[in-house]
Amino acid sequence: MFTIKQVDQKTKARLGILTTTHGVMETPFFMPVGTNAVVKTLSTEDLLGMGAQIVLSNTYHLFIRPGMEVIRQAGGLHAFMSWDKPLLTDSGGYQVFSLAKLRKLTDEGVEFQSHLDGKSHFFTPEDVISIEKILGSDIIMPLDECAPFPCDHKGAERAIRRTTLWAKRSKKYFQENSSNRNNQLLFGIIQGATYKDLREKSTEDILEIGFDGYAIGGVSVGEPVELMFETLKFVLPLLSENFPRYFMGIGMPDQIVRAVGEGVDMFDTSIPTRYGRNGTAFTRQGRVVIRNAEHTQDMSPIDESCDCFVCQKYTRSYIRHLVNTKEILGLRFLSYHNVYFYINLMKKIRQAIQENRFPEFKKEFLATYSSTLEESKEEQSLLTKER
Amino acid sequence: MFTIKQVDQKTKARLGILTTTHGVMETPFFMPVGTNAVVKTLSTEDLLGMGAQIVLSNTYHLFIRPGMEVIRQAGGLHAFMSWDKPLLTDSGGYQVFSLAKLRKLTDEGVEFQSHLDGKSHFFTPEDVISIEKILGSDIIMPLDECAPFPCDHKGAERAIRRTTLWAKRSKKYFQENSSNRNNQLLFGIIQGATYKDLREKSTEDILEIGFDGYAIGGVSVGEPVELMFETLKFVLPLLSENFPRYFMGIGMPDQIVRAVGEGVDMFDTSIPTRYGRNGTAFTRQGRVVIRNAEHTQDMSPIDESCDCFVCQKYTRSYIRHLVNTKEILGLRFLSYHNVYFYINLMKKIRQAIQENRFPEFKKEFLATYSSTLEESKEEQSLLTKER
Repeated sequence: MFTIKQVDQKTKARLGILTTTHGVMETPFFMPVGTNAVVKTLSTEDLLGMGAQIVLSNTYHLFIRPGMEVIRQAGGLHAFMSWDKPLLTDSGGYQVFSLAKLRKLTDEGVEFQSHLDGKSHFFTPEDVISIEKILGSDIIMPLDECAPFPCDHKGAERAIRRTTLWAKRSKKYFQENSSNRNNQLLFGIIQGATYKDLREKSTEDILEIGFDGYAIGGVSVGEPVELMFETLKFVLPLLSENFPRYFMGIGMPDQIVRAVGEGVDMFDTSIPTRYGRNGTAFTRQGRVVIRNAEHTQDMSPIDESCDCFVCQKYTRSYIRHLVNTKEILGLRFLSYHNVYFYINLMKKIRQAIQENRFPEFKKEFLATYSSTLEESKEEQSLLTKER
Repeated sequence: MFTIKQVDQKTKARLGILTTTHGVMETPFFMPVGTNAVVKTLSTEDLLGMGAQIVLSNTYHLFIRPGMEVIRQAGGLHAFMSWDKPLLTDSGGYQVFSLAKLRKLTDEGVEFQSHLDGKSHFFTPEDVISIEKILGSDIIMPLDECAPFPCDHKGAERAIRRTTLWAKRSKKYFQENSSNRNNQLLFGIIQGATYKDLREKSTEDILEIGFDGYAIGGVSVGEPVELMFETLKFVLPLLSENFPRYFMGIGMPDQIVRAVGEGVDMFDTSIPTRYGRNGTAFTRQGRVVIRNAEHTQDMSPIDESCDCFVCQKYTRSYIRHLVNTKEILGLRFLSYHNVYFYINLMKKIRQAIQENRFPEFKKEFLATYSSTLEESKEEQSLLTKER
């Protein structure tokens, strides 16, 4: 299922192969986020064209819309969205805590109100697995309790206890209801906020239950970036080397490069599409706000070093005009370029590991890529205006 | 410049070749509308892929945004939008009367306030030609006065008098400022509202000045469809057969098929993209509102008989979900399919003329295509909510 082909000699970066029903993927990889069964603004042709290996989608959103009956009728999520490569589905736990109105949280499960129509729903861990079986995703994430930041020790402790309880029930239900267990992979999620003792306990618990891969959850929830990396560096050595490691919801390009160096295999973030829809592009030198007036007469491409079709053919001036006139095509161009940038970054990372030059690659990337650890106030306000 | 290859024996439909600097086009053709230097939601790759021969853009909109300095800097409109096939530019006359706030209208020109920032501008016919020369469009439309519907005889008479005056000045300026006259074609526009005496007078005037092609303007401005066809049938026989004939702003697919039968060579309308962005698709059987709940579990394509990539790969259920969740990709899919439908319709029309079976094609098309002469109230209200 997961094979490590090569481990970097100086860092902990590793090159691997992850095999699922819908295809074989090279790790480390990036998963474009397709919350509503679509990577915002992009078709599956676009994703195939840029070399996406896998797409992430979301149980909570799909359960709300279009609803499971439609997906079942279509023959699963792959068929529904016309994507026949691997899919990973998030459990919806994070959305229940962040997006929906949480009504009641007990060991039994979680009661929440849809963010759309206020309708009440109840998810048990078993319900979530059952939904993900209908979705037919290649990699299933179980229901977990994601503690917010900041969170006191007591609250974080309660969250890891419940996450472990739910992980056990998820695995049991998953095993008892799999005619062919190899068709889907089930991952475990490690919680524990920023407390080392809790992270250690959660890791032990989840490892003991045993999963096909391990995700570090409850990160990138508002904590300082260096604290996030401390958590990562603490947890990773506790994990077995023989399973894929997924750092959930990370991050900016420089953060990904650093995390690969710590031994992470899988990444997802909505940053490239979200920033794209807000008029910002990622380039080899850092972020560029194409919406800004300074690009009005800039006849150069978004990124001189990029070979995506947008950079091959369209100027900053034109794309800025599209964004400025609220033309949808501008959002698509920026989203396409940004996702391409992330996918291409992973390709370069894998090449560097393979050619035994990842440390040099990392050093050079971090030196030339403007630190994006801090977002400008303008960008933060833009992000809240998400379409 | 314009050659007629074939004339249908029973109707007045004709097959021709129109040659411009940026390419040779087969008539009759449809021009997708790219008001802001973009056919809404579509890239120029999309347009090339579906066989678009020419795109229409708009002087008024481009003058307001991005402004002429940016287009000049880019090297013209073709380069700015990365489209190296022919372009036709509307004079902006219609927009000055419909979109902008009209301040003053004299024989000298028109003073208007930008619909965006309220800034005052003054356009003379010479200004408009001068702008279109910077744009570098292959086919230039001169400034005209488009009478509204309804309009009394006196008002319509004043409009044709001024349209003639401006047409003369436009041609003079165009000729005096062309280093190489063959690089751009200048069309004349016939006005006259629904009054036959005025249409006749306007046609005589415009023919006497002499242009590279002739457009029937002031149609599809709210008058009943049959009155529009009466105007068309009255004016067309007054025109010389040796020049291209452009029926401005028309129309629904069945109207285009009928107008081809009357001898029209060129069409433009924003209907396919506008309806697409509002969740409606064109099919061989008529319009289908994909947004509607009845398509929730409809696993068939938009149009079984269509071979566009959207119909080859995506279901009504999925596209309905995209529109329902306000995903931009849904608007792109519907716009793509709809423009493809129009372009493909023209291809079929040309084939039918070539194979001497246009009357049969027309009869069969009108029999199987649901009459769309009347818009539903829901659709009308949708159209006003244009993004």
